[in-house]
Amino acid sequence: MREAIGREETARLLRQWDHILVLSHRNPDGDTLGSAAALLRGLAAMGKRVSFACADPTPEKFSGLFEGLALEEFAPEHVVTVDVADAALLGTLQNKYEGRVDLAIDHHGSHRPFAKAFWVEGDSAAAAEMIWLLLTQELGAAPTREMAEAVYTGVCTDTGCFRYQNTTPRSHRIAAACMELGVDAAAINRLHFETKSLARVAAERRALESLELFGGGRCAMIRLPLAVYEETGAAESELDGVAALPREIEGVLIGVTVKERQDGEIKVSLRCDPPANAAELCRQFGGGGHSGAAGCSFQGLSLAEAAARMKAACEEYLDKI
Amino acid sequence: MREAIGREETARLLRQWDHILVLSHRNPDGDTLGSAAALLRGLAAMGKRVSFACADPTPEKFSGLFEGLALEEFAPEHVVTVDVADAALLGTLQNKYEGRVDLAIDHHGSHRPFAKAFWVEGDSAAAAEMIWLLLTQELGAAPTREMAEAVYTGVCTDTGCFRYQNTTPRSHRIAAACMELGVDAAAINRLHFETKSLARVAAERRALESLELFGGGRCAMIRLPLAVYEETGAAESELDGVAALPREIEGVLIGVTVKERQDGEIKVSLRCDPPANAAELCRQFGGGGHSGAAGCSFQGLSLAEAAARMKAACEEYLDKI
Repeated sequence: MREAIGREETARLLRQWDHILVLSHRNPDGDTLGSAAALLRGLAAMGKRVSFACADPTPEKFSGLFEGLALEEFAPEHVVTVDVADAALLGTLQNKYEGRVDLAIDHHGSHRPFAKAFWVEGDSAAAAEMIWLLLTQELGAAPTREMAEAVYTGVCTDTGCFRYQNTTPRSHRIAAACMELGVDAAAINRLHFETKSLARVAAERRALESLELFGGGRCAMIRLPLAVYEETGAAESELDGVAALPREIEGVLIGVTVKERQDGEIKVSLRCDPPANAAELCRQFGGGGHSGAAGCSFQGLSLAEAAARMKAACEEYLDKI
Repeated sequence: MREAIGREETARLLRQWDHILVLSHRNPDGDTLGSAAALLRGLAAMGKRVSFACADPTPEKFSGLFEGLALEEFAPEHVVTVDVADAALLGTLQNKYEGRVDLAIDHHGSHRPFAKAFWVEGDSAAAAEMIWLLLTQELGAAPTREMAEAVYTGVCTDTGCFRYQNTTPRSHRIAAACMELGVDAAAINRLHFETKSLARVAAERRALESLELFGGGRCAMIRLPLAVYEETGAAESELDGVAALPREIEGVLIGVTVKERQDGEIKVSLRCDPPANAAELCRQFGGGGHSGAAGCSFQGLSLAEAAARMKAACEEYLDKI
């Protein structure tokens, strides 16, 4: 029923299908949206009718990915997810589509199969890399600048612009191929990595004031109480990048960001350097992700309580590794 | 007397020579040191006697580049500079070597010829890319992990880890080739882009407090008075990365960092996005660099006076572009 397949078999399935709905994960990021946009463009170019859905709206900075793409409204014959590690990450679309997904394309080693067939490459830096190879090597889609922009967006956002451990020679070669199709990589990089609103700069300053080191300097934690948003005018999504800051401090293996949300949930983002493994640590609290970056959340705890719990877990974990 | 040559001719010259001194520019960075280390390793592997000099000491984080390299002391038969755009950038070595440089290998469009022969590729993201191609395509040196580490260091530091406008498909392909030789790219990236001392974090916070926007939000300036170093314990070299901050603010085309130095000199670092050109702006004050990043300095002015002068120049410049 749940069958692990490869790239070739994935292409064979897609070739057979005509009405295809592509789903991205909730709180969509550059990889799930870039993968979806590139795949949709490739399928549309093959003459298929395509549609797209996601539990949450597409953030403004990614809206260009779908420009000019003829998305239709129809009852899909087939449903494909991209970059979705777990059915729960479909968010509000889970009830509607879980059990109806024909194909999952994903790069999370922690993938929990929910689709009839799933193609998972845990060592791929981004799902967008898989889509690129699927389109160009298997489906024979003529690569366009728009496809390349979507793929480049996925790869650069999921690798921290080629910085992280997950980056491979393949990531660089695909980036080169995308640039040769006319992608303005510097403009995309600037959009995703070098553009901060003034409000974000102010919020970052506030976050750094809460910086705390522990575990003999191997852990650093910052806290973002709701007040930070109110005082600086920053939106929560603007502060995604802040999670990278604590781990950047010399000697820190585990960087923790504890964030209070409007709905009372406390969201924790972890960034780790080997031998520390972020996914392993977050799993203790029902979360997940990659070894370098993972997350979990707490309900019914105050910011201080959640921070204390994470602190204890990090200290205990550090004793073991 | 001063002859522009290409990669092939460069290789022909080097093949003829036996005692070669390689020079890096003062205040050496990842590209001048990575280029030197890779070239020295290649020449040594070809059986040549090699030596290295630079006006300033090699920063700790680059010391690994020269590990195990058999550098000799000798009166050089031939002198080669790498990544040196102007003889003045030889610093305290200028008097000794200006007029004695046989070959300059450089990637600055603003290169002012001072060597008998110069190979300049203004569109190369890093001098290290040129060295890589020279070694592998022309000199037939068997590429080693150590060479690849040096080249990767040059490319990643000069492209802001593949973020900046100067990054080309070639930059990515060379990075891929280096990684395939066993380079731990993530570790190098972390060393150069993601490792901040606590003192630096504190100094960054102080720098951000001085943030000022002008020119209708298209210019941002931060100031680093000497007191910042005293109060935070940060070394001046630790604050190099701070110069990137002002330009990262949404809508900013010109980011200016004005820094007071121990010797009374005021150092200005500019980061620009098109159509603003950093080299053009700095040239007004006798400075230089690339379109995206350039610098200049002032003698005999206070920090406030230098800041005011830069501010006026930026505003005037913005009216023209």
